[in-house]
Amino acid sequence: MSAPEYGRAFTLWRKAAPEWDAYTRHEFVEALRRGDLPRQDFLHYLRQDYVFLIHFARAWALAAAKAGTLAEMQAASATVQALVHHEMPLHVQVCARAGIDAPALEATVEAPANLAYTRYVLEAGYSGDFLDLMAALAPCVLGYGEIGTRLAGSGGPYSDWIETYAGAEYQALCHDVGGLIDGALAYRLGPDWAGSPRFDHLAQRFATATRLEVGFWQMGLDGA
Amino acid sequence: MSAPEYGRAFTLWRKAAPEWDAYTRHEFVEALRRGDLPRQDFLHYLRQDYVFLIHFARAWALAAAKAGTLAEMQAASATVQALVHHEMPLHVQVCARAGIDAPALEATVEAPANLAYTRYVLEAGYSGDFLDLMAALAPCVLGYGEIGTRLAGSGGPYSDWIETYAGAEYQALCHDVGGLIDGALAYRLGPDWAGSPRFDHLAQRFATATRLEVGFWQMGLDGA
Amino acid sequence: MSAPEYGRAFTLWRKAAPEWDAYTRHEFVEALRRGDLPRQDFLHYLRQDYVFLIHFARAWALAAAKAGTLAEMQAASATVQALVHHEMPLHVQVCARAGIDAPALEATVEAPANLAYTRYVLEAGYSGDFLDLMAALAPCVLGYGEIGTRLAGSGGPYSDWIETYAGAEYQALCHDVGGLIDGALAYRLGPDWAGSPRFDHLAQRFATATRLEVGFWQMGLDGA
Amino acid sequence: MSAPEYGRAFTLWRKAAPEWDAYTRHEFVEALRRGDLPRQDFLHYLRQDYVFLIHFARAWALAAAKAGTLAEMQAASATVQALVHHEMPLHVQVCARAGIDAPALEATVEAPANLAYTRYVLEAGYSGDFLDLMAALAPCVLGYGEIGTRLAGSGGPYSDWIETYAGAEYQALCHDVGGLIDGALAYRLGPDWAGSPRFDHLAQRFATATRLEVGFWQMGLDGA
Repeated sequence: MSAPEYGRAFTLWRKAAPEWDAYTRHEFVEALRRGDLPRQDFLHYLRQDYVFLIHFARAWALAAAKAGTLAEMQAASATVQALVHHEMPLHVQVCARAGIDAPALEATVEAPANLAYTRYVLEAGYSGDFLDLMAALAPCVLGYGEIGTRLAGSGGPYSDWIETYAGAEYQALCHDVGGLIDGALAYRLGPDWAGSPRFDHLAQRFATATRLEVGFWQMGLDGA
Repeated sequence: MSAPEYGRAFTLWRKAAPEWDAYTRHEFVEALRRGDLPRQDFLHYLRQDYVFLIHFARAWALAAAKAGTLAEMQAASATVQALVHHEMPLHVQVCARAGIDAPALEATVEAPANLAYTRYVLEAGYSGDFLDLMAALAPCVLGYGEIGTRLAGSGGPYSDWIETYAGAEYQALCHDVGGLIDGALAYRLGPDWAGSPRFDHLAQRFATATRLEVGFWQMGLDGA
Repeated sequence: MSAPEYGRAFTLWRKAAPEWDAYTRHEFVEALRRGDLPRQDFLHYLRQDYVFLIHFARAWALAAAKAGTLAEMQAASATVQALVHHEMPLHVQVCARAGIDAPALEATVEAPANLAYTRYVLEAGYSGDFLDLMAALAPCVLGYGEIGTRLAGSGGPYSDWIETYAGAEYQALCHDVGGLIDGALAYRLGPDWAGSPRFDHLAQRFATATRLEVGFWQMGLDGA
Repeated sequence: MSAPEYGRAFTLWRKAAPEWDAYTRHEFVEALRRGDLPRQDFLHYLRQDYVFLIHFARAWALAAAKAGTLAEMQAASATVQALVHHEMPLHVQVCARAGIDAPALEATVEAPANLAYTRYVLEAGYSGDFLDLMAALAPCVLGYGEIGTRLAGSGGPYSDWIETYAGAEYQALCHDVGGLIDGALAYRLGPDWAGSPRFDHLAQRFATATRLEVGFWQMGLDGA
């Protein structure tokens, strides 16, 4: 599959990440597509994903703190706000319908693969700058967009999940984030940002984060 | 003036901060109250306050990143969102009406007293934790609430400014932030948080931040 | 095995960490003791441990930045200095003798279990304060001391490794770090620090870090 | 005075900082040169400088945590170690000889100009990356070297102070730090780093930090 139109940096980083296909075409994803993912694996994933969202929101909050322009700050702030006041309550509802009540959700023990990815993202942001944070967040935000697009219309028991990411709203977010990243690169590194060593370091961050996303899906399958 | 009802920590910190009155009854504030603050001083203050808001929003974003509970994260996120999507655009309009257009506002050179306070707050947050950030932010958030209450109904050319902080909406925010702080202390230090050495360190943070707020008003008067 | 004399906080945290034995008596450790750990597994561990040391030194540097007293700063600084000017060059030599030359060492791809633990520690430090950092670092520093003591005199091909951690110098470091932690708790939370909710949160940090240490040994066995 | 040979970035940043001369030829400095700085002003400066050194050491520790290479980490770590185990004890002795005993030194209340500069540096480091930290630290480290060189041989009551910074050891440190900065820029931005927008942002950081250094000398004169 050619890269979705999520901007120039994403296209380059995606191509340079050895495990991009291992992530976006992981057996967990394929099982979602075919509809034969065991329900229990999906529920395990949902619970971990709730804990993930907490740290994901923290990472976007850190992005707002580290923004270089008002536009960057506004974009990051809107994302945090959507996550903590909309996505997370929604996730609680989805889990409740799936039989996981709020106390059970709160009691979720964070799996090592979950810890690995979220702390990698946050630490990249704390130790580095806004660009490091974007490079570490991108595989998640944009990878889910790519997966959604590829799986759109698959139907089956997981079609709700699939269509969330395939849908216009999520795809628009991916375009916005792709644009935010390209703009942030140009603002800091100039129009030839792709030729800067800094860009290579960011590509490595993207590749490492992609590797940890593979681990996240695998955790879903392994139930641990 | 007795302490406004902004919670128990505020009451204690306020009492222990030697320069609280020097801050809340600064000549700049008194001149706002009497209505004889030179227009030029007010405009200088407004411009610096715009730059201040940027870093204030960053500090609240950092608070969201460092939150210990979902409720803390939601409160901090809502504050950032209000600041960057509402307060700051509003501030641009207020300045425009006062004859400072957007490019002039953007060109504001951050005064040392402004740098001192904002960087003190942010650094407290980065080096410390959520509580350090709250203690450093509190003199601004709650001090303006106290000033607004005391100056309410003064009339004069600065009555718009005064009534913003005296108004129900801002006062409700002060109560919420006061409650957020008391809750954050109890969550981390237990019901006897006021007896912890940690609380004394936080009181020092509050006192230092108060001292830097005095400098901020003085900058308004000095025009530098 | 009763807890080594590394201070009061360690004794409490150790007891409250469900996977402490899974960590300190992991099959990797037992194989080191018996001397039948496959050489290749040990070399894999050594390479990962080199990358680990880089981030471990960064974490101690962050501790120096976040210290609350000059004594804390001096202790953390001395540890960083020992790591980057002594331990790491030594590690390069040990690896060289084991047939891993410097370029091979530098080319090590950081394993997910390594990323998970180091980034967890660093993020704990960035998001929290000095105490969070200590609680996340303690399982490594003090756990190796406990393992060294238990395995002392086992002989075999890994006796050099064992005796490094069993030796007087490393044991003295463990006592110092234990004392640093107890002192840091008292300085911030008073003499009854063990009764503070903050202490429970720190115990959770210690337990999570311990869990990730189990993963680190397992990575040694799995070769990935 | 032409720029000392402290590297290419320093030469460019120095030229672009409007207040460089206001800093390095401040009346406080000229009075040190002429030898007629009131003793009391010097003692006030010494006390504040002690508090400054604490935060300066913290900033270099943060640099070690944010280093991109082992060489950067080693350089930053050695600086922290020298500061906390050598410079600071020495400063305590110098103050003692000047009649300020250790308790008096510890009781120093940090002046706003001191808070402004140190927190600006630390916050630049936390919010940005290693380069931001270097750009904010450089006016201090290298400016003192330039001042020392210019004042060398002035004699008078402050010749000890002057010759410390004019001396071979401090000048070698300036060359090393200048080289560290040039190397860090090339590592991240490639050989044409001076043409990157990032470099302009760093020049602004350097200029702002220089402005805050002017305030630091002025504090010495004002005794507050």
